[in-house]
Amino acid sequence: MADESNDPLFFRRILITIDEDDRPSTTRAFRFAMTLAKDYGAHLGIASVLESNDISIYESLMPDKLNEKRDHLRQVVRDYAKRAEAFGVEQVRPIVAEGGDVDDVILQKIVPDFQPDLIVCGADVDFASHGKPGAIGLRLGKKADVSVIVIR
Amino acid sequence: MADESNDPLFFRRILITIDEDDRPSTTRAFRFAMTLAKDYGAHLGIASVLESNDISIYESLMPDKLNEKRDHLRQVVRDYAKRAEAFGVEQVRPIVAEGGDVDDVILQKIVPDFQPDLIVCGADVDFASHGKPGAIGLRLGKKADVSVIVIR
Repeated sequence: MADESNDPLFFRRILITIDEDDRPSTTRAFRFAMTLAKDYGAHLGIASVLESNDISIYESLMPDKLNEKRDHLRQVVRDYAKRAEAFGVEQVRPIVAEGGDVDDVILQKIVPDFQPDLIVCGADVDFASHGKPGAIGLRLGKKADVSVIVIR
Repeated sequence: MADESNDPLFFRRILITIDEDDRPSTTRAFRFAMTLAKDYGAHLGIASVLESNDISIYESLMPDKLNEKRDHLRQVVRDYAKRAEAFGVEQVRPIVAEGGDVDDVILQKIVPDFQPDLIVCGADVDFASHGKPGAIGLRLGKKADVSVIVIR
């Protein structure tokens, strides 16, 4: 039987979760995810979540307002994807999803779809609107069944 | 001012925490840490903690027994260090520390001394004797002020 215990181990499908705001740890997390994806030829998924909690009742009655938010987030994620491509990552996928709970959306929609073997999060990305305090990376680290890195 | 937001980001001082038992996630975490350290020329610290809780009162009255445990743990860590060197990591440091609480020993002794910018943990390394349930990586991810990766 082959003994793999001394073989290299690297990731082939890296998912980075970003929030709309350019927090310092998002930038560092993004740089790390790009570096790893480029150097190991991994697929890079760049994901963000439009949370229902972010949408007020007023806005939900105004489809234009909601579309505007959605378009803005899509643009943010597309911009990250362009930067990753310019950096040299060959397989980049922008992902925008919607739902009530950002953890659930990531774990139940994005992860099963993209099937990452590593999730990268900035330590201060907390989707504050979300109501649960603390970094999302730590919660994903507990709940996900794949490797998670929290970047500071 | 230079814009670093598209620069590569990688780690220069990687600390891996191992426990005595070869759990599957320890092996994977070790392989990832070796891979990263080799490919980016990083320093690799390989650390384990001899917990006071592991030492019964009986044993504490028997210095030979304690020395035996200490020597065994040192040998385990040295073996990991040799494997990392054989793999091609140039700067490897075996670290064995002792104390009452494994989290405190890592955060208050090992981290300030080795000064890692990344801590690598296997998801099922929980130093079970320690009394606190759950993986040490998750607790370090919350408490440490450096990046932490939990490997599954």
